[in-house]
Amino acid sequence: EDWRSREKIQIFQYVVLKWTLALLIGVSTGLVGFFNNLAVENIAGFKLLLTSNLMVENRYHEAFMMYAGCNLILAAAAAALCAYLAPAAAGSGIPEVKAYLNGVDAHSILAPSTLFVKILGSIGGVAAGFVVGKEGPMVHTGACIASFLGQGGSRKYHLTWKWLRFFKNDRDRRDLITCGAAAGVAAAFRAPVGGVLFALEEAASWWRSALLWRTFFTTAVVAVVLRTCIDFCRSGRCGLFGQGGLIMFDLSSSITTYGTPDLIAVVGLGIVGGLFGSLYNFLVDKILRTYSIINERGAPFKILLTVAISLLTSCCSYGLPWLVKCTPCPPDAQDQCPSIGRSGNYKNFRCPPNHYNDLASLFLNTNDDAIRNLFSGGTDNEFYISSLFIFFVGVYCLGIVTYGIAIPSGLFIPVILSGASYGRLVGTILGPMSKLDKGLFALLGAASFLGGTMRMTVSVCVILLELTNDLLMLPLIMLVLLTSKTVADCFNKGVYDQIVKMKGLPFLETHAEPYMRNLVASDVVSGPLITLYGIEKVGNIVNALKLTGHNGFPVINEPPFSDAPELCGLVLRSHLLVLLKGKRLFTKDRVPTGSSDVLRRFGAFDFAKAGSGKGVKLGDLDINQEEMEMFVDLHPITNRSPYTVVETMSLAKAAVLFRDLGLRHLCVVPKTPGRPPIVGILTRHDFMQEHILGLFPNIKQHR
Amino acid sequence: EDWRSREKIQIFQYVVLKWTLALLIGVSTGLVGFFNNLAVENIAGFKLLLTSNLMVENRYHEAFMMYAGCNLILAAAAAALCAYLAPAAAGSGIPEVKAYLNGVDAHSILAPSTLFVKILGSIGGVAAGFVVGKEGPMVHTGACIASFLGQGGSRKYHLTWKWLRFFKNDRDRRDLITCGAAAGVAAAFRAPVGGVLFALEEAASWWRSALLWRTFFTTAVVAVVLRTCIDFCRSGRCGLFGQGGLIMFDLSSSITTYGTPDLIAVVGLGIVGGLFGSLYNFLVDKILRTYSIINERGAPFKILLTVAISLLTSCCSYGLPWLVKCTPCPPDAQDQCPSIGRSGNYKNFRCPPNHYNDLASLFLNTNDDAIRNLFSGGTDNEFYISSLFIFFVGVYCLGIVTYGIAIPSGLFIPVILSGASYGRLVGTILGPMSKLDKGLFALLGAASFLGGTMRMTVSVCVILLELTNDLLMLPLIMLVLLTSKTVADCFNKGVYDQIVKMKGLPFLETHAEPYMRNLVASDVVSGPLITLYGIEKVGNIVNALKLTGHNGFPVINEPPFSDAPELCGLVLRSHLLVLLKGKRLFTKDRVPTGSSDVLRRFGAFDFAKAGSGKGVKLGDLDINQEEMEMFVDLHPITNRSPYTVVETMSLAKAAVLFRDLGLRHLCVVPKTPGRPPIVGILTRHDFMQEHILGLFPNIKQHR
Repeated sequence: EDWRSREKIQIFQYVVLKWTLALLIGVSTGLVGFFNNLAVENIAGFKLLLTSNLMVENRYHEAFMMYAGCNLILAAAAAALCAYLAPAAAGSGIPEVKAYLNGVDAHSILAPSTLFVKILGSIGGVAAGFVVGKEGPMVHTGACIASFLGQGGSRKYHLTWKWLRFFKNDRDRRDLITCGAAAGVAAAFRAPVGGVLFALEEAASWWRSALLWRTFFTTAVVAVVLRTCIDFCRSGRCGLFGQGGLIMFDLSSSITTYGTPDLIAVVGLGIVGGLFGSLYNFLVDKILRTYSIINERGAPFKILLTVAISLLTSCCSYGLPWLVKCTPCPPDAQDQCPSIGRSGNYKNFRCPPNHYNDLASLFLNTNDDAIRNLFSGGTDNEFYISSLFIFFVGVYCLGIVTYGIAIPSGLFIPVILSGASYGRLVGTILGPMSKLDKGLFALLGAASFLGGTMRMTVSVCVILLELTNDLLMLPLIMLVLLTSKTVADCFNKGVYDQIVKMKGLPFLETHAEPYMRNLVASDVVSGPLITLYGIEKVGNIVNALKLTGHNGFPVINEPPFSDAPELCGLVLRSHLLVLLKGKRLFTKDRVPTGSSDVLRRFGAFDFAKAGSGKGVKLGDLDINQEEMEMFVDLHPITNRSPYTVVETMSLAKAAVLFRDLGLRHLCVVPKTPGRPPIVGILTRHDFMQEHILGLFPNIKQHR
Repeated sequence: EDWRSREKIQIFQYVVLKWTLALLIGVSTGLVGFFNNLAVENIAGFKLLLTSNLMVENRYHEAFMMYAGCNLILAAAAAALCAYLAPAAAGSGIPEVKAYLNGVDAHSILAPSTLFVKILGSIGGVAAGFVVGKEGPMVHTGACIASFLGQGGSRKYHLTWKWLRFFKNDRDRRDLITCGAAAGVAAAFRAPVGGVLFALEEAASWWRSALLWRTFFTTAVVAVVLRTCIDFCRSGRCGLFGQGGLIMFDLSSSITTYGTPDLIAVVGLGIVGGLFGSLYNFLVDKILRTYSIINERGAPFKILLTVAISLLTSCCSYGLPWLVKCTPCPPDAQDQCPSIGRSGNYKNFRCPPNHYNDLASLFLNTNDDAIRNLFSGGTDNEFYISSLFIFFVGVYCLGIVTYGIAIPSGLFIPVILSGASYGRLVGTILGPMSKLDKGLFALLGAASFLGGTMRMTVSVCVILLELTNDLLMLPLIMLVLLTSKTVADCFNKGVYDQIVKMKGLPFLETHAEPYMRNLVASDVVSGPLITLYGIEKVGNIVNALKLTGHNGFPVINEPPFSDAPELCGLVLRSHLLVLLKGKRLFTKDRVPTGSSDVLRRFGAFDFAKAGSGKGVKLGDLDINQEEMEMFVDLHPITNRSPYTVVETMSLAKAAVLFRDLGLRHLCVVPKTPGRPPIVGILTRHDFMQEHILGLFPNIKQHR
């Protein structure tokens, strides 16, 4: 990829920089993750405190107005930020990161403005009481931070740094983004190993074992930063920042022993969880398609939709707890019960002294605290079955209708919430039939939902292990994950894959589709092929650039310079633009330029891949009529060994080649001599199912 | 790869089988791992008990004779098994597994006899008191079990199974072996996540995220099996099986807080550990080269060498503890001190009552118990500095001289042993300057040695985390690993890479070497190219098979069947043999056979890749003179879309293609028309540094 070899000192700079960047990504992501939690806990805590204080004074209407009002303002602010500043910041962000790491350069996914909006919007959205998580946005934030640091900031804001020119190629950038995504998971869950495995299992499309170590280093830095910050806050210097807002629960007190009935219960939990999970995916897909109609009408509609959902959420959270009766406080409660005048887990909510409202403890709480309540072990009678049922239905539906509104919204927390309530519900219903702890049931329920929606397995497993810090329940978690994933895979794809597909991002699957075996490479080559000659007229190049959107042009050597027309290589649009912009190599006649000339006239890094939005644009060219008639030698900037396939190569094999090597262009050459030396160019889009099925409607679609 | 598409029911069978095999591999590896530990603990425990009983009676000479004699017999038995039955079972086995997963089909690496000898030999070797581990052999054992199950047993022993015909291709086999290797690590360390990461980081050359989940499933099964077995043994039904022989230590009692001086100490530990680690690699390399001269002289010499080392080890273990003075028992010892008449950790060894010999606790003990003693926390004064120093020097040297003798010998335990004693030594010397626990120092020392020799990072880190079951010391372990690996990388390569290279296995590196950029594909094509015609005379094929060792032959279409000579594809030696053996398609004249004929006359799985040693051999052919003159149509068995590169393709890019797609043959085609349609075939050997440097001695060797 890099067409000039590097010297020793540069390699050293490169290695140092690589690790420095990993360190910086870790530190920044850790700090942002902490700041995020701090802000959410304080804003939401303050809001909940105000509400409960008003309720203690029996001013219920004012309390609702206050609660709904706060939510509304936060939601509207988050939506406005998203709608006007950075539409790409809406949603989870994991599908976008996944697509980017697959090689899709979608517009502005990792721009600094997206980063900014993602952080603030996520804080607003979570603090507004939506059933959304901050985990997906954290992954996106981590990736944005990595991209921001890797580009040396943004030229737009005049923050560039010379050393970073080493990172101007696809692979290094992908590596950085992978580290960033892993750091995001690590910051969200405080799970360094889980972060690495998440990046490996879900995010990355290419993986080298060298990257493993760097990623792990980054996530470990995140863990250290988070731990330092939380230690700092433990002394109460961080306002309402309670237990850290990072789900961390301890089940190790309950010793995990289980018999056959327990295992059957767990398998049943997994099967039903898988069904619910795939239903979740199905409904999210439908909702997203509906919302996209509304969202497309413009920013005001986006905000309106968000406000409507916010009102719905407020009504549910505030209204539903009125339905259940009060629970007497457990005699051995470690926490103050009911908690009055502070943010605690036993919500008073209109109850007589020494009683609390169990549904309010779930609904009128931050999502993290609700999860912690559901997971809590040794408290078998904390929740009524009816409360758990109402909460499960409420959160399941709210989670579905909330995803798709124009705020940064993670999917982990809704899924964990509904899964945990489902698990605890099942556990409570089974009652004495199973010896397992109810908190463990909640954990297994959450695992079954995660397996059913995300279809991630190892990373979810390890994240849950790291959250519980206990290896002994590994077999149960694995069993439930395996069951639910298998069940859910019968119905549809994972939620992130669904979203990637719905957004129309050209994602290359690992496996070639079966029908590709019956096609050959030349079958799917499309469009008129524009070739350039080795020494080409400037005007022709400008025209080619103007008339097509192609990013790669094959270069052909013609008889005066070779015996027969032959494929010389491939030249990239960006390199052509740099060459034309430079103008220094234009010649009056068809004469070759030595490559030493190029080295002399262009800096070593002029041709390196520019950051997003930083490259030379076609409009930047200023070429007069006289120059249009001149010639320029393309050989020095041509990639002389492009990967090629013969036109009769099976498409499936070409797809494997394209995907495994992470190519952007694949030249198709003719099998028999005597024809033009290149048949066409395959790009990512030519391997997409839509394109192939468009060309061959008769192919039966498998699956 | 598979040239016939499969039907639904077959896909179902395939998936079920895949998971069943993963389950079986997990269960078998777990059981074997447990059996291994059980046997070692009982044999070694019995031996140590006898010795110490004799010592209590002051019969020191007899005690030594007994000790050395037991060791000698065990060692000789293990060596004899290795030397006569399965020479491939000697050594660690990890390099071989690594090479196999890289695509090297070395002879008998995974044969059933190797499996058998590996298990018994490893038990003998470890029980004989050698400074060797059972971890490397466990990995090899896991891989052998996977291969054995995946081939449906061995045809030699009449154990085949019909369903397994699905697994007769390279990829599925590699997947199975990967699972097996991960299961081996999991069984050795009881670290399921560590096993997965080990397979990912060190063993596998190709990785798909689908494999991640299957591997994890396997390792989790191993963990469950081990746990069940150990629970079963806890009641004392397993003889001298003490704490399980699986290193499992608990540092969680000591809260990890550290300041700047501690960090400096840790970095220093890492630097020195890295130096020692690379020195270890260097010395192991030298020793291996020396031993190979001896070992090459035949099996008796191998046994002789083993016996000599065994005597040396016995002398050291028995003799060195005489040098140190006795230590008074700690008043709060939980264990019996000194332990008389049973296998305990406080060895009496000639000491007055209430005293123990600390060096004997390390030397006259199983390696696992010695490591547990070194790691033990809260026991700052358990060992004298002088004892630790003697033990460190002794184990370091013994570990080096032991690797390379003809017994299955892992490298993990020697490295952990010397690293832990080094770390504890440093910790004891530093004394009050550092607040860290001495046991933690031992752990960090072990980590530094592991980083310095194996150069694995994430997996070592996770394995150590799982062993200690405490996430809080992650930053320190990472710091020390990062330091030692960086330091050691300045000097030489990891020990496994070294061994792979020394054994002459053609291992393909991930990165192309820099000098490859200046070469093109046609530069390294070697040897006379043998091509076959689309419809070829049987005699010519037989000759080609006889005269060359090539595994792939390009097939060329000639003018009667095409306009110009063109490359039709590639045919494999094994397929040719099956076709010739079948004889059914021989024709008198040059006429094409329809592919439906082939389908009719050959079963669907006749051409599937046979197990090692199971394919049709050249000698099996029985073709008479008349048949030699007949023709056979090769088109039906030709792979019509081989991957090709143009002869001017840069060698570096061709190497990336070859390695990333896991190819075995890469066709080189000419750039200009009018020449034969194929220039040559590149195989694994053509990318080896030795081959290229042989062709171009002028290339300066980087690094």
